[in-house]
Amino acid sequence: MKINLNADLGESFGAWKMGEDEALLQVVNSANIACGFHAGDPMVMRRTVRAALAAGVSLGAHPAYPDLQGFGRRPMALSPAEVEAAVIYQVGALAAFAAAEGGRLSHVKPHGALSNQACEDAALADAVARAVRAVDRELILLAPALSQLYFAGERAGLRVAAEIFADRAYTDEGMLMPRSRAGAVLHDHAEVAAHVLRMLAAGGIVAHSGKVLPAPMQSICVHGDTPGAVESARHLAAALSAAGWTLAPLPALVDGQAG
Amino acid sequence: MKINLNADLGESFGAWKMGEDEALLQVVNSANIACGFHAGDPMVMRRTVRAALAAGVSLGAHPAYPDLQGFGRRPMALSPAEVEAAVIYQVGALAAFAAAEGGRLSHVKPHGALSNQACEDAALADAVARAVRAVDRELILLAPALSQLYFAGERAGLRVAAEIFADRAYTDEGMLMPRSRAGAVLHDHAEVAAHVLRMLAAGGIVAHSGKVLPAPMQSICVHGDTPGAVESARHLAAALSAAGWTLAPLPALVDGQAG
Amino acid sequence: MKINLNADLGESFGAWKMGEDEALLQVVNSANIACGFHAGDPMVMRRTVRAALAAGVSLGAHPAYPDLQGFGRRPMALSPAEVEAAVIYQVGALAAFAAAEGGRLSHVKPHGALSNQACEDAALADAVARAVRAVDRELILLAPALSQLYFAGERAGLRVAAEIFADRAYTDEGMLMPRSRAGAVLHDHAEVAAHVLRMLAAGGIVAHSGKVLPAPMQSICVHGDTPGAVESARHLAAALSAAGWTLAPLPALVDGQAG
Amino acid sequence: MKINLNADLGESFGAWKMGEDEALLQVVNSANIACGFHAGDPMVMRRTVRAALAAGVSLGAHPAYPDLQGFGRRPMALSPAEVEAAVIYQVGALAAFAAAEGGRLSHVKPHGALSNQACEDAALADAVARAVRAVDRELILLAPALSQLYFAGERAGLRVAAEIFADRAYTDEGMLMPRSRAGAVLHDHAEVAAHVLRMLAAGGIVAHSGKVLPAPMQSICVHGDTPGAVESARHLAAALSAAGWTLAPLPALVDGQAG
Repeated sequence: MKINLNADLGESFGAWKMGEDEALLQVVNSANIACGFHAGDPMVMRRTVRAALAAGVSLGAHPAYPDLQGFGRRPMALSPAEVEAAVIYQVGALAAFAAAEGGRLSHVKPHGALSNQACEDAALADAVARAVRAVDRELILLAPALSQLYFAGERAGLRVAAEIFADRAYTDEGMLMPRSRAGAVLHDHAEVAAHVLRMLAAGGIVAHSGKVLPAPMQSICVHGDTPGAVESARHLAAALSAAGWTLAPLPALVDGQAG
Repeated sequence: MKINLNADLGESFGAWKMGEDEALLQVVNSANIACGFHAGDPMVMRRTVRAALAAGVSLGAHPAYPDLQGFGRRPMALSPAEVEAAVIYQVGALAAFAAAEGGRLSHVKPHGALSNQACEDAALADAVARAVRAVDRELILLAPALSQLYFAGERAGLRVAAEIFADRAYTDEGMLMPRSRAGAVLHDHAEVAAHVLRMLAAGGIVAHSGKVLPAPMQSICVHGDTPGAVESARHLAAALSAAGWTLAPLPALVDGQAG
Repeated sequence: MKINLNADLGESFGAWKMGEDEALLQVVNSANIACGFHAGDPMVMRRTVRAALAAGVSLGAHPAYPDLQGFGRRPMALSPAEVEAAVIYQVGALAAFAAAEGGRLSHVKPHGALSNQACEDAALADAVARAVRAVDRELILLAPALSQLYFAGERAGLRVAAEIFADRAYTDEGMLMPRSRAGAVLHDHAEVAAHVLRMLAAGGIVAHSGKVLPAPMQSICVHGDTPGAVESARHLAAALSAAGWTLAPLPALVDGQAG
Repeated sequence: MKINLNADLGESFGAWKMGEDEALLQVVNSANIACGFHAGDPMVMRRTVRAALAAGVSLGAHPAYPDLQGFGRRPMALSPAEVEAAVIYQVGALAAFAAAEGGRLSHVKPHGALSNQACEDAALADAVARAVRAVDRELILLAPALSQLYFAGERAGLRVAAEIFADRAYTDEGMLMPRSRAGAVLHDHAEVAAHVLRMLAAGGIVAHSGKVLPAPMQSICVHGDTPGAVESARHLAAALSAAGWTLAPLPALVDGQAG
């Protein structure tokens, strides 16, 4: 009965601050740290790695498209080879900060439009998985449950962790309901916790309609960049503990060896 | 009687080509590969690492100031902490490509204005040395002979390799003569080779005036971005061999252990 | 019997050179000058504007997606509002160099993926046209014949010039034949000139199949970034003159007033 | 008895917010708007221009070194020609947004390290002044009182407005006291207002020591990016009104014609 909470961190850049990293690091178990392409700069990356290690939070790289202005959220058409090289670059950069601070990178989770496109496009997903494996085959690929990215990790012989989103409703196909639809984003803390517990109990994604899609689930993604987000994450962590779940860093959940 | 030839490589970017990397890789023993801040992009970095490995050339990171437009040649005032973080980032990124291609990074050589400023400013030099050590203490710091950067490497307990420049005249203080002065840059192939052999025979930098400054010298920097440069490098390599020197990758020259 | 030759110029960046601008400026009548987003930097832009004015070549802005690494050739998903703002920014920047050098911007021609997407997507095309009009309603929009971008310019009340590509074959729908298909790119100088003269004589695009799509045509796009390109452009200019066409800058071809 | 309040605005970038622009626009008379090199992106620039026009605030360009990561605050060594081109580029980009929103740029004020270096280096200052004049000789150069930048504006025949800083103490040489020294930054609202009124009454800069350096003063720079800053600016505006000063946009203060 172990589960992981992950969050995107280190998304400040230069003089600009974003997120409540300090507070969130007290709640989550694993950090997806921006690598300079959509957010983060070398100073921010180092500071974030240091703070995560101090909080006992496992370290992940959060690579993205090279689009600072669009925060990595704008779809781009990079070739699989370009995606592979961009991911190698970013994972390597973050791994160096982990080493410099006496830690070690444990996972990789793509960001924004890169993640969204790799979740639907097997060729891009394979490029991401190849990149992760090329840098360090012990790295865990953290990917949305039932996504092409998850399956690409398996194909590449990587250890893979499946994540669900705490505050998002799902379609009957197991995809995130578009934000434009009513009910797509859950705002009430209690509702968020109930949504997550329902999925964990069901052993799969529970769609908005109630349909259950069986799926492995090792991690829950929470956010820290909206008002009340940290509070919501704290509430979820407490609810999970009350329900008998032990929160743990990713490496404790993904047993076994890389293929 | 071993000596090393090093050159800056991988300085193309996106659609723009620079240098004759393929030809130069047949001549030099060690490559200083751009890391994306002054030149190089993930695709170029990967391609260059692959080509260097295929040619049996040892791999070095060539970190720079974040100044693509100025090719890293414009002095900037970064704090030592910013320099340290920028170097960690870039070395990590290149190390990942080395790993991805089945190789291993063996050295780091700062580029352009970062190098120039670190050669004169001990605080910046220490920041660079700390960064190299933080990523991997087995890395060799390749630095101009008698520079602050060289001494900072020693202070940090790194293995250090001293380089001289094949086509540049030196002042009585052992500094490069400013390009604005007559005779600062040697253009004739025979003159370049004679200059290098004279310094190796003297066991130190031979200034324009004839003054000798004793210095360790493990490597000779040649260039590939000007007309005739590859030809000059070939001529130098032949002259060195004829004089009994064996050309070798950096790790073969820097014996012993990191401190 | 007037016609215009246009070419993309000023696509160097920092230390990297691209194209044979000096030679091409002796051949073409109008220059599409990169504005810093896909190529060009402030120094390159100024130098190019100056050289174009000296050669009597009319000045155009060549705005692009913010993607230096991809040379503006990678499709991106910017919102129409983002496209509009990006075009205003770039056109303004180039207009300032025109003013600084005593000239005046006469046209705008989008680059690469921005152009390709705006040629097919009316919403993006309208965003580009709105941007051009917002900066200066006297500016001419230079767009591929029969494209959504051309029609958007008309809708916006702009003066519009239609261009055809000298070295590219067309589909029966008037689109450029994909480069992956045999015969998509014409390499022979004589063939290029014959292709252009055939279209001018037919008063429209002549597809690979021979089908004619009537279309206005004020300008012919030539390239300068491939071997033999300048030679091909010179040959085309001579062939046009021999056939009775007078080559002229864009403003001489697009009569009338903006709407 | 007219005086101007100016502030730096539009310093958000992409997903990152900075400053309380909306509140500050209700207080100041002139806005120095970031142009994309240290902050601001095309969307932010357009939004800020629109908001400033709606508030009746006059528009200024706030050009900077190309250093997003360092927020334009890190000294760089650009040649005068590079500075000139960088300023032309940025002023042109902002002027286009002014035109697009039905307004007109009235002034230029350099940012951060570019301003600091141009205030002390006459060659850089002349480069800035040449750039402003090259784009539009009607533009006002807003520069610190008694700075090289101010004098360069005069030499170039530009209309020049001298500014003082509301919350900073001055040395006997009329320079800003380094932030590292006690008393360099005034925090108390009443103290700030008294400092400004004292200088206006004295007709010059009043140094920390009490020494008066006679100087023209048309504008007072206030900040909006620290807690309490807007409140302090409001208090200053009220104090100025109470003392009989009329607050006005820059063009109302800088009479006469450009040279």
